[in-house]
Amino acid sequence: MEQQLKELKALLTEVYDLEHANALLHWDQSTYMPKGGAVARGRQMATLGKLAHEKMTDPKIGRLLDDLVPYGESLPYDSDEAGLIRAAHRKYEKATQVPADFMAEFTTHTAETFHVWTEARPADDFSKVQPYLEKTLELSRRMADYFPGYEHIADPLISFSDEGMKASTLKKLFADLRAELVPLVKRVTDLEPVDDSCLKQTYAEEKQRLFGEQVIQRLGYDFSRGRQDKTHHPFMTKFSLGDVRITTRFRENDLGEALFSTIHESGHAMYEQGIRMEYEGTPLASGTSSGVHESQSRLWENIVGRSRGFWEYFYPELQRTFPDQLGGVSLDTFHRAVNKVQPSLIRTDADELTYNLHVMIRFDLELALLEGKLEVKDLPEAWRERYRQDLGIAPADDKDGVLQDVHWYADTIGGVFQGYTIGNILSAQFYETALKAHPEIPDQIRQGEFGTLRGWLTEHIYRHGAKFTADELTERATGSQLSIDPYIRYLKGKFGELYR
Amino acid sequence: MEQQLKELKALLTEVYDLEHANALLHWDQSTYMPKGGAVARGRQMATLGKLAHEKMTDPKIGRLLDDLVPYGESLPYDSDEAGLIRAAHRKYEKATQVPADFMAEFTTHTAETFHVWTEARPADDFSKVQPYLEKTLELSRRMADYFPGYEHIADPLISFSDEGMKASTLKKLFADLRAELVPLVKRVTDLEPVDDSCLKQTYAEEKQRLFGEQVIQRLGYDFSRGRQDKTHHPFMTKFSLGDVRITTRFRENDLGEALFSTIHESGHAMYEQGIRMEYEGTPLASGTSSGVHESQSRLWENIVGRSRGFWEYFYPELQRTFPDQLGGVSLDTFHRAVNKVQPSLIRTDADELTYNLHVMIRFDLELALLEGKLEVKDLPEAWRERYRQDLGIAPADDKDGVLQDVHWYADTIGGVFQGYTIGNILSAQFYETALKAHPEIPDQIRQGEFGTLRGWLTEHIYRHGAKFTADELTERATGSQLSIDPYIRYLKGKFGELYR
Repeated sequence: MEQQLKELKALLTEVYDLEHANALLHWDQSTYMPKGGAVARGRQMATLGKLAHEKMTDPKIGRLLDDLVPYGESLPYDSDEAGLIRAAHRKYEKATQVPADFMAEFTTHTAETFHVWTEARPADDFSKVQPYLEKTLELSRRMADYFPGYEHIADPLISFSDEGMKASTLKKLFADLRAELVPLVKRVTDLEPVDDSCLKQTYAEEKQRLFGEQVIQRLGYDFSRGRQDKTHHPFMTKFSLGDVRITTRFRENDLGEALFSTIHESGHAMYEQGIRMEYEGTPLASGTSSGVHESQSRLWENIVGRSRGFWEYFYPELQRTFPDQLGGVSLDTFHRAVNKVQPSLIRTDADELTYNLHVMIRFDLELALLEGKLEVKDLPEAWRERYRQDLGIAPADDKDGVLQDVHWYADTIGGVFQGYTIGNILSAQFYETALKAHPEIPDQIRQGEFGTLRGWLTEHIYRHGAKFTADELTERATGSQLSIDPYIRYLKGKFGELYR
Repeated sequence: MEQQLKELKALLTEVYDLEHANALLHWDQSTYMPKGGAVARGRQMATLGKLAHEKMTDPKIGRLLDDLVPYGESLPYDSDEAGLIRAAHRKYEKATQVPADFMAEFTTHTAETFHVWTEARPADDFSKVQPYLEKTLELSRRMADYFPGYEHIADPLISFSDEGMKASTLKKLFADLRAELVPLVKRVTDLEPVDDSCLKQTYAEEKQRLFGEQVIQRLGYDFSRGRQDKTHHPFMTKFSLGDVRITTRFRENDLGEALFSTIHESGHAMYEQGIRMEYEGTPLASGTSSGVHESQSRLWENIVGRSRGFWEYFYPELQRTFPDQLGGVSLDTFHRAVNKVQPSLIRTDADELTYNLHVMIRFDLELALLEGKLEVKDLPEAWRERYRQDLGIAPADDKDGVLQDVHWYADTIGGVFQGYTIGNILSAQFYETALKAHPEIPDQIRQGEFGTLRGWLTEHIYRHGAKFTADELTERATGSQLSIDPYIRYLKGKFGELYR
């Protein structure tokens, strides 16, 4: 079995080499590529994607897994070998259960849809994408049907990024969360709005960059195994465990934009940088799910990065960096500004309290579409209706409504949005557990020391990579299943204090 | 045949997609990669190289060529189809005639040798690399033997980068050139040395960069299809005809370093950018040989970039950029400084007149090694001896002697150096012909207009890509075979005037 495992690893490493090379093509496309390179780059990425898929569906891998899966089951569940075989098996099943022809049709269709969306959105013309989205819905259902035996048609799609998570679980969880959030948001927004004008002055980009990089270095992002560059939309990407990069964008009239996106992406990156180096080139060398990944970006961005203690440490330095802008602004004013709650139309600009309402609207709508309870043509109105209900405001147009996010126009309908809210929920659950083990963490944060927190996260989450599923990891790390209670406690505590 | 040609193109485009993705991995490794990415990057590049080679040696390509080669021969020689089939056939032969096992052995050996060289050079210890170099010599001979029927054992190796060029031709050509150069260099160096101290002041990097980029934009380098970044060693690289990048390096105490390397690399890049866009993804989308490529970098760097007319246009702007350093330096003094002739030990720092002597020393030594007339253990002393003869100076150590260039320690012995001198020779031959057709070119250069020259080069060289071999291209463009006469006329004219 030693030999077979070695063979399997070698075959998988080739797949990852292609996938990571492709990730570099994508990173370069977003950072430094001159515009003349666009056409060929698209083709090159398609070629590498196709070759990686061919390599991943190599029947040799299937034959090796036929022997290795039972062997893996005979090993201790926690062993690296068992975990590697489980993760490899999942990746193989996912790659082989969808026929190559269908995958090609789907990829071509979403590429076209994306292109049409880039024109429909600025033109505020939903009718342009409607037929494409109808086709996407049909293809999403067919995609799910390649994984029969599901309870809800969204389950296979959700499982692509949040292995094992089910629509029924999420529906319940999200309904409970919504029941808490909607009145909480109402209470806060009935009060006088927070003044965040201190963030909206002019902040030189280069100084913003230096400050942000200093912050994340202090948090624990390792620049010898990463770097930060500028892109239109911030993201984290990885070419190996030794090369985990992040990107950000700057707005000179909004100090929060780059700073919090930098911290957010560094949270994703610290997760990947924290995986055991021995896993390099294997299916274990990756965060385990979209939800757990998001828990780390949100933990560092919000729970840590928007906390009072964090700014007790960093605010004096920020004031020294921007004396004209912040010299006369108190820590209290600044801390309230970075935590301003205000219902808005755009998900990515949303505050910590309203953010999940945006996500849950999308999640419910995509379930309704997949269930056949909602037709694509009625989506724009359904969108407005839910915004009115949950946030008390609704977009005047579709541009800031149903056309807002790229997701439905570049992927399946269903299977992506849930990760954002699972992440928020988990961030509080993990943090609360870390605090129980190390009650000194808040004091340390006040001193600019993050090693104990990062150490706990590394020990219980990061180092395992994809060895355990999100559920297993949550259970092991926190002693219980995914629960909204810590998150509600956290939000009520924080915003109760901020808004008395 | 239409269908077969289409299939061939599709297969080759996949190979190029892999090769160009690999070129991006390499570019990133030299520009932005954090040091933690090194190990995985090496593996990723090896994987992509192996897959590209597997794809290129696909028997399907062989079968298609079996039909297409005779078909190509029936087409007009100048047609794109015929050229494409010829170029594809050459690439296929080169890829298939060397067994994969041997190629793997060779690659492993050169990687090791390179690694040993990186330690042996700073330690000035030739004995460390000697056994590796002996093995390299043996492997280089075996490599050549996979292409039987040669006249000289170096011929197949030379043909890898300078298709069709032979050792016998080069020996004669280089001997003639040397006979002219050695006395010319002596005459010049007997005179009082030129004062180039104006170049050795302090020049801020960012201003150097902006000036250099302004220059090459004016020459015709298209920044919408390229960009310039910093690397330890400057190079040109291409990811598609729409994305041809260059790199440079700056020395704040040497104005010439970045400026002329930028112009040099932009010459390579303009060649690639000038290839017909219809050739994208085919074997025609590439410069035709190492010699022709080098002719373009040297033409723009030396014949244009170190000419008096060029500086009549650009010097006032350079003075405005560096008023403290150059405000009081006359055009004459500056122009003489950038053309200073001084025998030195380092090839890459050599002036226009002595440069070829460095190259020819290496070329003669590698032929002697391949012919068995020189043993590796005697190479250091042979090196010193030839330097004394040709340049009147010899290195005190091996670091600046036989260990100087990476080439022998990272590739075959034989087959690389000749391109540099062929390039210099051809640069003058092409330029003289362009001038015959357009005698107004020097006046235009004085006005900062380069369109006529670039137009002639595009028409006669660039746009053809690899459709014609270097010999064919030279004959078509200049009406005669490769000849040193224009080069000698150019050098005698230029340095005669500079040194009276």
